[in-house]
Order: sequence, then structure tokens, then C-alpha cells
Amino acid sequence: MKLGMIGLGKMGFNLVLNLLDHKHTVVAYDVNPEPARELSGKGAIAAGTIEELVSLLEPPRIVWIMVPAGSIVESVIDTLIPLLSEGDIVIEGGNSHYKESIARADRLRLHGIHFFDVGTSGGMEGARRGACLMIGGDQRIFTEIEPVFRDISVQKGYMYAGANGSGHFLKMVHNGIEYGMMQAIAEGFEVLDKSQFEFDYEKVARVWANGSVIRGWLMDLTERAFSKDPKLEEIRGVMHSSGEGKWTVETALELQANVPVIALSLLMRYRSLEEDTFHGKVVAALRNEFGGHEVVRNQ
Amino acid sequence: MKLGMIGLGKMGFNLVLNLLDHKHTVVAYDVNPEPARELSGKGAIAAGTIEELVSLLEPPRIVWIMVPAGSIVESVIDTLIPLLSEGDIVIEGGNSHYKESIARADRLRLHGIHFFDVGTSGGMEGARRGACLMIGGDQRIFTEIEPVFRDISVQKGYMYAGANGSGHFLKMVHNGIEYGMMQAIAEGFEVLDKSQFEFDYEKVARVWANGSVIRGWLMDLTERAFSKDPKLEEIRGVMHSSGEGKWTVETALELQANVPVIALSLLMRYRSLEEDTFHGKVVAALRNEFGGHEVVRNQ
Amino acid sequence: MKLGMIGLGKMGFNLVLNLLDHKHTVVAYDVNPEPARELSGKGAIAAGTIEELVSLLEPPRIVWIMVPAGSIVESVIDTLIPLLSEGDIVIEGGNSHYKESIARADRLRLHGIHFFDVGTSGGMEGARRGACLMIGGDQRIFTEIEPVFRDISVQKGYMYAGANGSGHFLKMVHNGIEYGMMQAIAEGFEVLDKSQFEFDYEKVARVWANGSVIRGWLMDLTERAFSKDPKLEEIRGVMHSSGEGKWTVETALELQANVPVIALSLLMRYRSLEEDTFHGKVVAALRNEFGGHEVVRNQ
Amino acid sequence: MKLGMIGLGKMGFNLVLNLLDHKHTVVAYDVNPEPARELSGKGAIAAGTIEELVSLLEPPRIVWIMVPAGSIVESVIDTLIPLLSEGDIVIEGGNSHYKESIARADRLRLHGIHFFDVGTSGGMEGARRGACLMIGGDQRIFTEIEPVFRDISVQKGYMYAGANGSGHFLKMVHNGIEYGMMQAIAEGFEVLDKSQFEFDYEKVARVWANGSVIRGWLMDLTERAFSKDPKLEEIRGVMHSSGEGKWTVETALELQANVPVIALSLLMRYRSLEEDTFHGKVVAALRNEFGGHEVVRNQ
Repeated sequence: MKLGMIGLGKMGFNLVLNLLDHKHTVVAYDVNPEPARELSGKGAIAAGTIEELVSLLEPPRIVWIMVPAGSIVESVIDTLIPLLSEGDIVIEGGNSHYKESIARADRLRLHGIHFFDVGTSGGMEGARRGACLMIGGDQRIFTEIEPVFRDISVQKGYMYAGANGSGHFLKMVHNGIEYGMMQAIAEGFEVLDKSQFEFDYEKVARVWANGSVIRGWLMDLTERAFSKDPKLEEIRGVMHSSGEGKWTVETALELQANVPVIALSLLMRYRSLEEDTFHGKVVAALRNEFGGHEVVRNQ
Repeated sequence: MKLGMIGLGKMGFNLVLNLLDHKHTVVAYDVNPEPARELSGKGAIAAGTIEELVSLLEPPRIVWIMVPAGSIVESVIDTLIPLLSEGDIVIEGGNSHYKESIARADRLRLHGIHFFDVGTSGGMEGARRGACLMIGGDQRIFTEIEPVFRDISVQKGYMYAGANGSGHFLKMVHNGIEYGMMQAIAEGFEVLDKSQFEFDYEKVARVWANGSVIRGWLMDLTERAFSKDPKLEEIRGVMHSSGEGKWTVETALELQANVPVIALSLLMRYRSLEEDTFHGKVVAALRNEFGGHEVVRNQ
Repeated sequence: MKLGMIGLGKMGFNLVLNLLDHKHTVVAYDVNPEPARELSGKGAIAAGTIEELVSLLEPPRIVWIMVPAGSIVESVIDTLIPLLSEGDIVIEGGNSHYKESIARADRLRLHGIHFFDVGTSGGMEGARRGACLMIGGDQRIFTEIEPVFRDISVQKGYMYAGANGSGHFLKMVHNGIEYGMMQAIAEGFEVLDKSQFEFDYEKVARVWANGSVIRGWLMDLTERAFSKDPKLEEIRGVMHSSGEGKWTVETALELQANVPVIALSLLMRYRSLEEDTFHGKVVAALRNEFGGHEVVRNQ
Repeated sequence: MKLGMIGLGKMGFNLVLNLLDHKHTVVAYDVNPEPARELSGKGAIAAGTIEELVSLLEPPRIVWIMVPAGSIVESVIDTLIPLLSEGDIVIEGGNSHYKESIARADRLRLHGIHFFDVGTSGGMEGARRGACLMIGGDQRIFTEIEPVFRDISVQKGYMYAGANGSGHFLKMVHNGIEYGMMQAIAEGFEVLDKSQFEFDYEKVARVWANGSVIRGWLMDLTERAFSKDPKLEEIRGVMHSSGEGKWTVETALELQANVPVIALSLLMRYRSLEEDTFHGKVVAALRNEFGGHEVVRNQ
């Protein structure tokens, strides 16, 4: 099929290569002209503007948006609406909040444009070689463009999830689970690190990645990380987060769902951003008040 | 090689089949004579007693113990000590506490007997087709019996972990991680279950098992579980635990290691064993006292 | 001073009695005419409508709103705006979200009306005999009406907190702390309840309420609750929540503040609303899949 | 009554003063002779050795041990046993583990010596002016020495808790609750500290200490702490712990009791002891592996 790709960052760039591998025709655009130029050398059609991108597609046009979630998605859609026609299809593959995706679908529907919210997992490698796609939108239209999803995902790795919003909802929850799984793995290695034994963490990750109950891609990546830096001495344990974990917890609170592990995984990330905490000071001060326990003074 | 297997339950039975597949000679014994008889039909040598099992091996004998952790392991070792000779090897493959394994290694060492604590993961399927083995003990002796471990594990699926205790320590922490990963996955599905969408959980598990960041054996099993009971309506959410998760948390407390996620996974299991809680009653009563909030009365 | 009270529920009714004790003149109104009638027998002036209430006050009028948070507050303010004049004062003493209070202050300011968001703690007893008040709004106007706050609070029990929103923000966080403290107390009694000892909980609460580090009003209330029902056998451990705990956690997530204890207290409340959980089913099903562990089947 | 006090640290010293206030006769001993000398100037009888202390008492002797928990208590009891006679009474007022207290009671019972495990709360101020005492031991003997407990505790501030061990069990759980309450208060102030408002924390603590639901001694102490250092800028948030919180969690795990809040309060203390964490490094490394997310490198 033929489609446009707006946004050629780590994910979008690799998705284009993946689409080209499968003989799709891709018109590629990014605010930065460099990646489109590079992709044109590999078979894509470079567009200098969103207008040009749209003009290079034929109705019903398929436009895949792969830009950072939030106001950038919004502004791309603002730009697209007057350029697109009834029956065209917009696919939004970023990490948008599912409520925003529902609102966008509603807005585009007023113009007769079909919207798909596509949660994308598998990292850059997945984008390049076979992603995992969770797709929300109109099922009838989905069937028409299904070959695209089938081609760029790993086998069994795409799913029609349901009505608009369901794709990004699944991706959000996927990331919440990811937070919990990563924290669980990390806690295990912390216990090893404080134990009386002298474990070789790369070997531990390797054995756990092969045949154990906890084997999986995250354990493969753990092995790879330790192969590069055997005790992770080069990096600091600062755990940033990009939003979906927080959304999962917020959504769970709305739904009164039990998510202690995902919530704590998120809170430990926030904790890691600080060298010292105000709550710690309060507890230390209280211990000093009632028990005369020593406090650690700032120099 | 030739070795004895004491304990022919779910795990031991499958390990024997696995060993036989790899042309090892196995003398098999269980308090229940039935599985040894069955295995003798598949190439194993059945022993009616531990004495007979030992007598059917030649020094240096290798005896693998695969019985429930705790007093049963202890009693098997009590029985074995007078039967074995200096240079013999005892492999203990159950879920024993690593401190007990260190103590057992010390005890057997006094008799000149080598001890290996082997953490075994991968479930029954792993035992049968290729397990994941974490092995603590004397490295020189390990090298002599390494072919046994290599044959019955999946590729890259066995590891010499270090001194005695390290094998069971790794297995313990592995299970702690498993608790956290399972709880994370389960929390994600609970969020889905309370959401506005109508997800097909088997399909969700399948797509997450293929290409996503959280893919792995536990997600494969999640897909399998939903394939049998699409909404898990037939079972109750009672989460039993067999000890290693608790040991992991206890060990973490000793080591002052950060394990909020593993700890909470364990506590949610305990919570699931109760239909009502005393702490809940106290909070409900307090809310009633200060705010006049309604309580739910028992009929 | 003279002021109007809109809303004569548990809190508003007791606040009126408290104001009357301190020789303030109160015009009282509620959608249900009964409490106003009852209060008129105790010295208040009953109003049959909000219009009448306003007409019975003289500019600059002081109107205290004590109705359930949310749309009811909004509708009372909608009704009040056309009735009030520049320089009048609206006090909102409910459990409103601080962001709504900031918005309300902004809206009323356009009409020249001063707004105070007053977080009120101490339960019904506090409302009646001496409350704890956290007050956000214009500090100059606050000084004019300070005598009202001083009279109806316990000694040292009122505070000018800062700009609009700060009063309800403090109240929100107060309630978050309350969730954590209640859960901590309740967990302690659960440990006692599962111990080998036969404690008399009323006596335990009494001794902890007198001289211990954890003494305080919540422990007094714990003693009182156990004095009525020594083992809380009559009630169920269903822990409802009215919103501020959730807001505290949501706000903490926005601010990236460390609130594991408040978050867990909230999540345990949600957990208590369910007899069985979907996450529990998933974990139970997974344990069955990989280890053949028994599940509890629904009958 | 007449009794001996072994251990004149912060707690023991103040208890002696408290006993003297109530006209008890106290023989005082500490390894460091200074405090006994000081107390002899205030009415106590100084003893230079434990032998001398015992010799200055008449049967049935009452000896109160107030030394650091653990091996020091053990060694004092070892010293006492040959010096005491049948019918004598040993009171152990430290923060000992309840299982040790049960074992000590059993051991002393073999010599006909009565043992009381006394959990003591209220800090140094309580020891001096009126403590909170939770007392385990033989109820008949308790009645004989009850006047001592009554005199040195606040009104309603002592309790016969039950069989040996119950006193220290109650104290242990009391401290577990204390961990949770302190963490809850501290989290609340952290939310304030990260908010858009400019709160005066001393004033906030004061208003919460007067009339609110969360009023109590810990809030009084919070006010006092902020009065000395308004933003706690002088200290670091390092939260040490002395053991009872850990014991509470360990005991809860044994009893399968729900203690998420107490457990997390403990884990946050451990977290505060570290500037960076290994689990944080693992999560950061994993994020880098699958998403190319930046890591913070050590300089």
C-alpha cells in the first residue's frame, strides 16, 4: 500500500525502513529534512512539508503520525484536517493518552476522516524488524489497511483492540506492566548486589533468560546491559519516566483498580530523581524529637 | 553418567525422563513405589529403598535429591550420610532456603561428601525438556559433573553460581522477581477488566507475547490461561505462595535492600487469602467514629 | 458577626450551633427545611431560600457554604452570584478540590466578591465544639472576618494558609495523612489479631492513647470503637473513601512527590471494596500454568 | 517500693528520677559510674557493680534492666541469675524481641525468678514524667508490683498485656504503627513542599496539632521540629531505624498479616540510607537498552 509517514525520529525512521522492506510505498516527512533525505536514498519519497506529503498521496490517503505525544500530535492534526478529504485515514502511533485519542477520533470523524490509535511496542528494534501493534478504531476500515499492520509487526504481533482509544489504552497498560516488571527485575539484582555472594550479573541474567520462568525480552536486555557494564558502575540509578506509567496509575485510581506494584514502581522512579527528600527530613527530625536519635547534619 | 534420583514428584519424574533422553543411567526412588515402576518401563532402574538406590551406584556416587524442601530433605540426608562414602556427591534440587543449604554443605563436608545446591526453574516443562539450573558448590567438582547439568538444561540454561548456597539464593531471588512480574501482569489485566473497553484477554496476551517489551514466558502462559477460560470466571483470585517470595523479602530486610514491588506482591497474596480483614474493620470503625460515615454491618 | 450558613448537614448544623454559642448571628438555610426550623429554636434565623438568606444579611454579607463538594457547591455559587454585591464574602467550607477553589475564587473576583476556601477538620465534634480550620484567600479580608474563625475553632486551631486554594490544599493533604495514619493503626491491630496472644483491644488502644508516641485523637477514637464492639465482629472491613485521599495521590503524582504510604492506604481501601479480584485470578491461573499449583475453583 | 535499676542511659536515668519523684527507693547501676553518682545526689543509692546492686536489695528483690536490647540484656541476665533467689523479679524494659523475652522468661522460671517484659513508650519525656508501659508476665505477681508501674506512667498509661512476650510484642507493633504514622505525616509535608503554595510548616503543624483528626503527639513534635528549623535545611533526610519496625514486618510475614504501609515505611527508611541504588541502575540501563533513553553517567 501507499502511505505517508509524518515524524522520522527513532521510531518513525525505523518504521519507514520496515515498510519499505515489505514493498510499501512511503512518503516521508519530518520537520528536520535530514532523515527524509536519508530515507529517499533507501526507496522512500521525501516530502518537504506536510502539504507536499498529502499531495503525494491519492485518496483514500493513509497518513501515519509518529511524533512526540501531546501538543505536537495536536498541531500535526490541525495541519492535516484542511488537507485531507472524507474517507482518508489517520494513524497515530505515538504514546498518546487514550482520552486524547478518543477526542481526536471524534474530531476527525466530523470531517469524515477515519482515525486509528496505534499503541506501538518493541522499541526501535521492533519498529525496524517487527513491532507489536495494538490498534483502536473502526473495524471495517481496519480490515482494509490490515496488510500494513501485518507486514510491519512480528508474527501474531498486531491486534485489533476495539473502539477508538482502546489501542492507546492497551499500550498505556502495557507500559504500566513494563514498569512493574522492570522494577521487579531490578529489585532482584539489588538483593544479589547486597548479598554475601559474588555473582556475575551478566551470567545470572543469561541463565534467567534461558529456561527460567522469568525469561523474556527484558531479561535478554538485562543480560545485554550487564555485558556492556558488568556492575553498571558507569551510570547512575536515575529512573526517568515518560508518562504512561503515571497514566496507568491515574487510570487505575479512577477505576478503583488494584495496582500497588505499578504504583510503587512509579513512585520509586520519582524517588530516584532526588538526592535527598523532604519526607526523610521530617522523619529524621521527628526521631530526634521523641527519642533523641542522632540526625545527619548538612555540612 | 550414572546417578540416583530420590523423589519422583512432578519435578523429579520429569527430570528422570530428561536424563534418560540424554543417555544417562538413572536409579530412581520415591516413597511411593508407583513412579519408579513407571520409570523403569522407560529405561530407569527402580530402587525400593534409599539403601538400594545407593547400593546400585558406584563411587563416586551422584545422588540427586528432588523432594519437598524442609524436613523431608533433612531426613533424606540423614538417611544418606551413613550410606555414602568420601568423594560422593549430593545434589539438592528443591526449593530449600539458602542458609539451610550452606548448613547442609558444611555438614556433608565433614563426611567428605560434596554438596550442590541447585535452584531449578522452568516448571514441569523445563524439567522435562530443558530446565534452568543455578548451581552452588565446589567449582572443581562441578566441572566433573557439568555434563549432567548441560544435558538437562536448555541452551545457556545452567550456571555455576559460586559457593554453596549461591544456587538456592539465586533461585530464591528468581522467585521473588517472578512474584513481582506476575503481580505486574495481573494488575495490568485488572485495569483492562475495569475499563470501558471490551478486551479479548487472550488476544491481548497474545499480542503482548509477540514483539512487545513485556513479552516472555509468563505472557505466553497468560495467553494459554485465557485460552482455557477467557475471563477466568471459573477460578477464584486466591494467590497461594510457597515460601521463596517470603524468603526474598526477609533476606532483603536483612540486607536493607529496596524491594517494594516484591514485598507488595507478597502482601497482596496474603491479602487474597482472606475474605475480610481486621485492618479494614479498624479503618471502617474509625471513619464511623470521627465522621459518622456508614459502616457495612455483618448480617 | 452576622453571617449566613447554606447547608445544614452534619457539619453545617454543628457549625451553626458553635457560632451561636459565640454570640454570632446566623441566618440558616438548607434544601431540607427541617434543620433550619430546629436551629431557629436555638437562636438562628431560618431562611426558606437562598434568596431569603441573602436578603436577611447586610453588606458586606458573609455567606458560608457547607454543602457536599462538587456540583452542589457549583450550583449554590451560581445562585449566589446574582444575589450578592461587590465586597461580599463567600466562605466555602466543604471538601472541594483546591483547583476548583482557585477557579471559584477567580470567578467570584470578577464580580468583586471575596472567596475563602476553608478546609475543616475535627469531624462533627470539632464542628460543634471547636474545629480545625485551614483558610485560603485574601489576607486583608481574612483579618476582617478572623473573629469568626477564632471563635469556632479550638485554641491555635485556625490558620491563614495563603492564597486561594491553599486552604483546601492543606485539608486535602491532611486527609491523605489521615489515610496513612489510620491504615498504620489498623495494620498494627491486624498483627495483634493474628498473633499468639489474646489482647484486649480496647485496653491496648487505651494504653497507646495515654503516654505513648502514637497517642492522639485517632487512638482515642480507636479506644472508643473497641469499647462498643470489642473485636469489631459486627462490621465488615469495607473501607470507603470520599475523595481527598485520591486527590492527594493524584496531586503527588503531578508533583512527583514520594507518597508510597498514602498511595497504599488508598489502594487498600479500593481492595476492600471487592470480595475477589481479577488480578488475583490472573496470578492464580499463572501459578497453575507453570507449576501445576492448585487453584480454588468457584462452585 | 524498693528496686534496682541496671542501665542509666537516656531512658533508665529518667526512669530513676521518675521513681524517686514517687518515693520509691532505687539502687542504681551503670557500667559507666557517672550517672549513678549523679543520681545518688538526687536520692538514689549508687551501686558500683551488679553484685553490689543485688546485695543492696532485700528478697523478694525487684531488678529493672534498662540496657540496649540484644547481647547486653543477655549478659546482664547471665550475671544476675547466680545472684538472685527464688521469688525475685526481673523487669526488662528495653526494646527486646518478644521471642527473646519469652525465652528469657522460660529460662528465669527454671530458677524460680519472675520475669516481666515491659514495652516502654513515650520517649525520654515519658520516662521522666509519665511513660506508657505494656507489661507481659505472671498476672498474680504483676498485681504485687503494680504500684511501681502506676506511679511512673501517665494516667491510664500502663497495661497488663498478658503472658510473657506480650509486653514486648505490643511495643514492637506500637513502633511499627509509629513508622507508618511518621511516614504518613512526612509524605504530607513533602507534598506541601513541592506544591505551588508557600506554606509555613510550623504553622501548618500547629493547626493540625489543634483540633484536626490527625492531632496527636507526633504532630506536636512536628511543630516543635519546624519551630527549630523552619524548612529542615540543616539536616539530611537519612532515616535510621532501630529494629522494631523490621521485627513488625517480619512478624507480619510470619502471621500473613496485611502491613503494606508499615512495610513501605521501613523500606523507605532503607532507601534513604543510600545516595544511589543498584535497582535504579538496572532500570535505567534497561530503559536505555529498549528505548534508547538517555542515562545519567557518573562523572
